Amino acid sequence: MTDKKIKIAVIGAGSIATSQHIPNYKKLENVEIKYVVDIIPERAEQAAEKFGIPFMATDYKTILNDPELEAVSVCTPNYAHAPITIDFLNAGKHVLCEKPAALNLTEAKQMQEAAVRNNKMLNIGVVNRYNTAVNHIKNMINAGELGDIYHVYCSFRAHRSIPGLGGAFTTKEKSGGGVLVDWGVHFLDIIFYCLGDTKINSVSGAVYNEMAKDMQSYAYTSMWAGPPDYSGINDVEDFVTGLVRTTGPTINLNGAWAQNIGESAMFIEFLGDKAGIKLNYGGDFTVYSSKGEVLTETLPSYATTDMFFEEMKDFIRSAQTGEKSRSHIDQVIITTEAMDALYESADKASEIKL
Amino acid sequence: MTDKKIKIAVIGAGSIATSQHIPNYKKLENVEIKYVVDIIPERAEQAAEKFGIPFMATDYKTILNDPELEAVSVCTPNYAHAPITIDFLNAGKHVLCEKPAALNLTEAKQMQEAAVRNNKMLNIGVVNRYNTAVNHIKNMINAGELGDIYHVYCSFRAHRSIPGLGGAFTTKEKSGGGVLVDWGVHFLDIIFYCLGDTKINSVSGAVYNEMAKDMQSYAYTSMWAGPPDYSGINDVEDFVTGLVRTTGPTINLNGAWAQNIGESAMFIEFLGDKAGIKLNYGGDFTVYSSKGEVLTETLPSYATTDMFFEEMKDFIRSAQTGEKSRSHIDQVIITTEAMDALYESADKASEIKL
Amino acid sequence: MTDKKIKIAVIGAGSIATSQHIPNYKKLENVEIKYVVDIIPERAEQAAEKFGIPFMATDYKTILNDPELEAVSVCTPNYAHAPITIDFLNAGKHVLCEKPAALNLTEAKQMQEAAVRNNKMLNIGVVNRYNTAVNHIKNMINAGELGDIYHVYCSFRAHRSIPGLGGAFTTKEKSGGGVLVDWGVHFLDIIFYCLGDTKINSVSGAVYNEMAKDMQSYAYTSMWAGPPDYSGINDVEDFVTGLVRTTGPTINLNGAWAQNIGESAMFIEFLGDKAGIKLNYGGDFTVYSSKGEVLTETLPSYATTDMFFEEMKDFIRSAQTGEKSRSHIDQVIITTEAMDALYESADKASEIKL
Amino acid sequence: MTDKKIKIAVIGAGSIATSQHIPNYKKLENVEIKYVVDIIPERAEQAAEKFGIPFMATDYKTILNDPELEAVSVCTPNYAHAPITIDFLNAGKHVLCEKPAALNLTEAKQMQEAAVRNNKMLNIGVVNRYNTAVNHIKNMINAGELGDIYHVYCSFRAHRSIPGLGGAFTTKEKSGGGVLVDWGVHFLDIIFYCLGDTKINSVSGAVYNEMAKDMQSYAYTSMWAGPPDYSGINDVEDFVTGLVRTTGPTINLNGAWAQNIGESAMFIEFLGDKAGIKLNYGGDFTVYSSKGEVLTETLPSYATTDMFFEEMKDFIRSAQTGEKSRSHIDQVIITTEAMDALYESADKASEIKL
Repeated sequence: MTDKKIKIAVIGAGSIATSQHIPNYKKLENVEIKYVVDIIPERAEQAAEKFGIPFMATDYKTILNDPELEAVSVCTPNYAHAPITIDFLNAGKHVLCEKPAALNLTEAKQMQEAAVRNNKMLNIGVVNRYNTAVNHIKNMINAGELGDIYHVYCSFRAHRSIPGLGGAFTTKEKSGGGVLVDWGVHFLDIIFYCLGDTKINSVSGAVYNEMAKDMQSYAYTSMWAGPPDYSGINDVEDFVTGLVRTTGPTINLNGAWAQNIGESAMFIEFLGDKAGIKLNYGGDFTVYSSKGEVLTETLPSYATTDMFFEEMKDFIRSAQTGEKSRSHIDQVIITTEAMDALYESADKASEIKL
Repeated sequence: MTDKKIKIAVIGAGSIATSQHIPNYKKLENVEIKYVVDIIPERAEQAAEKFGIPFMATDYKTILNDPELEAVSVCTPNYAHAPITIDFLNAGKHVLCEKPAALNLTEAKQMQEAAVRNNKMLNIGVVNRYNTAVNHIKNMINAGELGDIYHVYCSFRAHRSIPGLGGAFTTKEKSGGGVLVDWGVHFLDIIFYCLGDTKINSVSGAVYNEMAKDMQSYAYTSMWAGPPDYSGINDVEDFVTGLVRTTGPTINLNGAWAQNIGESAMFIEFLGDKAGIKLNYGGDFTVYSSKGEVLTETLPSYATTDMFFEEMKDFIRSAQTGEKSRSHIDQVIITTEAMDALYESADKASEIKL
Repeated sequence: MTDKKIKIAVIGAGSIATSQHIPNYKKLENVEIKYVVDIIPERAEQAAEKFGIPFMATDYKTILNDPELEAVSVCTPNYAHAPITIDFLNAGKHVLCEKPAALNLTEAKQMQEAAVRNNKMLNIGVVNRYNTAVNHIKNMINAGELGDIYHVYCSFRAHRSIPGLGGAFTTKEKSGGGVLVDWGVHFLDIIFYCLGDTKINSVSGAVYNEMAKDMQSYAYTSMWAGPPDYSGINDVEDFVTGLVRTTGPTINLNGAWAQNIGESAMFIEFLGDKAGIKLNYGGDFTVYSSKGEVLTETLPSYATTDMFFEEMKDFIRSAQTGEKSRSHIDQVIITTEAMDALYESADKASEIKL
Repeated sequence: MTDKKIKIAVIGAGSIATSQHIPNYKKLENVEIKYVVDIIPERAEQAAEKFGIPFMATDYKTILNDPELEAVSVCTPNYAHAPITIDFLNAGKHVLCEKPAALNLTEAKQMQEAAVRNNKMLNIGVVNRYNTAVNHIKNMINAGELGDIYHVYCSFRAHRSIPGLGGAFTTKEKSGGGVLVDWGVHFLDIIFYCLGDTKINSVSGAVYNEMAKDMQSYAYTSMWAGPPDYSGINDVEDFVTGLVRTTGPTINLNGAWAQNIGESAMFIEFLGDKAGIKLNYGGDFTVYSSKGEVLTETLPSYATTDMFFEEMKDFIRSAQTGEKSRSHIDQVIITTEAMDALYESADKASEIKL
C-alpha cells in the first residue's frame, strides 16, 4: 500500500452513501473523498457540508476526466449502475458499485467487460461477504466441517415490507425486479460465496405480484422508503420461489416482501452430511452436528467487525494493489446469472438450463 | 344405509391395523369384522383374540372367494398394497387400502383400473382428509376467504427420524421410497385435497440419501420401527426438495427424515392474496389476514373428531351407497403422480412435464 | 382553523413538559410557545434555551394577563392543577391540564365550573384516548362487535414500582392519592372512554398502604422519580381494589404500585356476550370471538400514531374551533367521580351510592 | 381408633362416588361399605358389582334404620344434599356430604342444626383442605411468614367450560347456582381455610348468565357432563364478580365457566406485607418475598398425598373419635354464607352487611 492518499468520488448521495460509503471512507487514512455527486443539488450540498467534502456536482460526467480521481463508489438507484460504472471504467477509474450489479445479466456482463478492457477494478457492494458470521461459515465449509453439502434452503420472507410502493423499488424499469433483486441478491450471494466455485446447471422459478396488485388495498403497518405513491408503478414481484441445480448442492428459495403469513423468516440453511448450519440473516448462526451417538447444537459467539468498513477498505486495497478481492465482479456475477434465470424461468413457466 | 351388518376383513395385523382399523370398525354398529389376516400366524392370532374376531388366516387368498365378505382393509407393507388390492377388487370386494396407494404410479393406475373394471370402491387411507383442521381450511378456501392462492410451501423436516433403518421402510423395493413416500404423501394429499381440482403441469425435484449412507455411523436418539438392521438395505431418500407447477398455485417442498438441522418443521403454508394459513401438521392453524389497515392473526379452536373413525365410517358408507367419497382413488391419485414425477425429475436432474 | 399562530405557555418544566408537551407543540405549525414557566428558575431556563422559547418565568401569575396568550398546558404536580387551571380560565385562556384533573372531585368540579363560566376549553391529559389500540377497541365496541359488555376487569399491578418514595407522589396532600391516582386514572379513563356514555351507580373499594409503611424496609430494584426521601411522607395507598356498578357493565379492579406478587399484570379485559378483548396496557390487544362452532383468537396489528402529538393537536383544534373533544373535562370527570367514590368507600368500609 | 370395622353406605353412585368415595373407602382397613344406593337401579348394580359391595338400594330410606350402619357419604346432585343428610343425621348416622353443603345457607344451617341435635358428625367434601400445597400455605400463614395478609384475589375463569348445558348443573333448582357454586366454592373454601378464623363483614357481588342465554348459539370445543340438552334449563350464572370485606383481608373474585377471553386463569393470590403467595389451583405455588434489598421468588416442591383418600380417612377418624376435623360443617359454613350473600347482593345490586 502506498503512502499517497487515493482520491475518490461518491456518486449518489442517498441513504446508503451518507450512512455507509462516505463515513467509512472517512475512517480510512489513505482515502480522500474529493467529490460527492447527486442529481438533486440539495442532497449533494448537504452531504458535502456535513462530511467536509471539497467539491460537489450534479452531473457525474463533469468529473469523469479529473486525472486526480482514481476511484468511485456508485450509490445510485439500480437503473443507473451500469451506465455510470461503465463510464468511469472507460475513464480509467476503479469502481465499487452498490448491489445489485445491474438491472440484468446483459448489463452486468457489459460492466465486467468494461473492467477487463480498461484493466480496472470493479467491485460490487456485496457487503455480507465481510460479515463475520458469514466468513466463519465459509471457513468451516472450506475446512470440511460440514462434509458434503447437498442442499441449501434460503428464506427471505416478511409479513409486510414492500419498500416505497409506487416508487423506484417497485418499478421494474428502475429496479430490475422486486424482492429477488432487493433481498434475494444478498441471500444468494452469501450462498455462492460460502460454497466457493460452484456453477449453476439449471433453474426453475416462479414470481408473483399479489399483495399490492391494487396498491390502494395493500394493508401495512409501516413502510420503508414510503409513503406509497399511488400514482406510481408496481410491476415487480413481491414473492419468488425457485429451485436451482448446481455442480454442488441444490438450492431452493422462498422470498416475500409481503405475504399473508405473519412470521418473519430470514435465514439460510446449509445441509451437509457431517454437519448443518442455520444462519439467521444479519445475526448469529447455529451448527448442528454429532459426536458418536450424541447430537450437538452449537451456538458460536465471536467478535464482529463493521462489514461496510471492511468492504470499503478491501476495495481501496484492491484498487491500490491490483489484486482482485472477494467482491470483484468475477466472483459475484453468478448471483446475477441465477436471478436472471429465475426471472426467465418464471416468465416461461419452464426450467432454464445454463 | 342398510340394516344388515357388512362383513369385512382386515389384511395385515400390524400397528396401523390393531391401533386404528380394527378398533374403529368395531365402533361401527353396521360392521362385523369376520377375518383378520397376517402372514405371521402369531400376529393374526393375537389380533383375533384381543378383538374377538371369529376367523384368522395367514394367506389372504383363502378368503378371496367368501361370498359373505364384502369389503377389506389392506394394512400390509407398501409393496403388497397393489397385488392384494387388485385381487380383492377382482373378487368383487370393496377395498380401503392404506397410504401410499402403491409403490409407484404404474401400480396405482392398475389398482384404479381394477376398481373401475369391477365396479367396486377403492379408497386410500388418506386420513388427514378427515382431520378437523384440514377441513376447516378446505372450507375457508372454498368460500374464497383466502382469495387467489398463488403459492403453497410445505415442510416435513425432522432432525432424526429415519424409521426402521435397514428394514422395509428404507428398502425401496418394499416401500417405494423414503421420506417422500412416508411423510410427503400426507402433506401433498392435504394440499391437493384443500385446493380442489388442480392439475399438475410440471415437476422439478431432487432427492438425497445422506445421513445414513453408512448405516453404522447414523447418530440418533430414538428410532420408530427400530432398532436398525445393519445387515439390511437403505436405498431410499432421507431428503427431498421440489417445485411443482400446477393449474393453480406453485408448490414447493422440503422434506427430511433426518438432517443436520435441529429444528422440527412440519407445516404447510397456503399463500393467498386475501389471507394466508399456516397449518401445523397434526395440530392447529393460524389465519393471517387484514381488515382495512389492520393486519390480523387468528388462531381458531374447535371440537375435533377422530379422523380414523371418520375414515372407516366413510369407507363403509361409500361401499354401501356406491357414492365415491373424498378418499376414493380418483381423488387421491394426483399425489402419486406428483411423487412419481418428483422421483423421475430427481433421477434425470431435469424438469418433468405432465 | 385560522392561519394565525396561536401563542401558548407551558406551566411546569418537568419531565412530562420537556419530553412531550413542548416537543409536540413545536411540531404544530400553527402553534408558538411564547412562555415556559417553572418555580425552579434553572429548569425554566434550560427548557427555554433547549427549545428556543422566547420568554421564561418563575411565577405563572406574571403572564396571566398577556392578551396575546391564548392557551396553556399545565404540567405541574397534581396539587397545583386546580388553582393554576382556574386562574388561567378566569384570565380567559384555554387550558390543557395534565392528568389527574385534580386532587379530588371537589376541585375537578370547580375547574369544570370555571371553564363553563369563562367559556373556555378545559382538556385533561388523558393521552390514552389518542392511543391507536384504544381507539380500535372503542370503534369495535361502537360497531357492536363485542355485543353486550357485561363486565370489565382491570389490573394495574406491579411488583415494585412506588415512585419517589417520600416525595410528592407518596404525599397525599400533593398527589391526592397513590396508585389509583397515578395509574388507575389511566385504566379507568380508557374504560369509560371505550364504553361511551355510562354512568356510575355505586362503588365499593378498599385501599392499603402496606409495602412501605416503614419506608426504610421497602425493598426494591429500581425507583422512578427516586431515590427515596426517608425524611418525607408516605401516606397514600400502594394497593387498591374495588367493584363499580354502572348503568352498563360492572367493573372490578386491582391495582398495586408494589406487592409481594412478582408478576406484572397491566391489562383491561372487556367481556361481551359476542366477543371479548384483552388490552395489554400500552401495547396490543387480542380479540376472542366465535364463528359458528369455531372459537377464534385474533391479534391485530396496525400502524400507530404518536398519542401525545395527537393530544396536543386535538387541544389546539378545540381551542380554535370551540368544539369540545374527547379530552374535555365533561368527558373525563367520570373517572374522578369513580376515584373519589373508591376512596370514600374505602374510608367508610361501605358501599357508596352515586 | 377401634378394631371393629365401621359399616358405611354411599348414597349416589355417580362419578364422584365411583371415582373417589368408594375406591378410597376400600383402601381403609377399618371401613366396610355395606350399601351403595342410587335411584337409577343400573348405576347401583354396576357399582355394587364392580366394587364388591354386598347390598344395593334405589331408595335411601330403606337403609336409614339399619342399626349396623354408622356413617354415610352423600354423593347425590346438590338439591338432594340437605334432605338426605338431615334424614341420616336424624337416624343417628355420621355424614360426609359432598360440596357444596347445600343449595343455600338456610339449608346448610338446617343441616348444621341436625348434626348438633343428634350429636353426630357432619363433614363436607371440601377436599382441597387435604391438598398438600394448600396445607403448606396454611402453615406458612399460621407461622407468620406472610406477615399481615391484607388482600386476597381469586380467579376461577375458563374460556369454555359450562358443564352439561341444560342439565342439573345449569338448573338453579337442582344446583343452587352456576360457576360460583361449582368452582367458587372450592376457591372460597381454600381461602377461608388458610386464613383461619375470619368473619365476613359485608359482600358486594354481581352475577351474569351471558354465554349461553341462547343455548343453541353457545360455541364450545368440549363439554364435561355433556352433551347439551337444548330442551333443558340454563338459569344459573356463568360469570360472577365480587368484593368481600372480612375481619381480616378484603377478598375479590372473578369467576367464569365461560367467557370471551381465551386464557384460563385459575389461581388464588394472598397478599401479605412480608410475603405473598400465588397458588395455581390444583397445582403448585410460588412465594414472593424479600431478604434485605433482594427480592425473592421461590417455587417449593414437596411430596403430595391423595387428597380424597385423606378426606375419607379424616371423616372416619372423626366419626370414631368424636373430634371435629377441618371439614366439619362448623368450619365450612362460612363459604356458604359468602356465596349466599354474593347472590343476594347481585340480586339487589347493593352491598349486603352480615
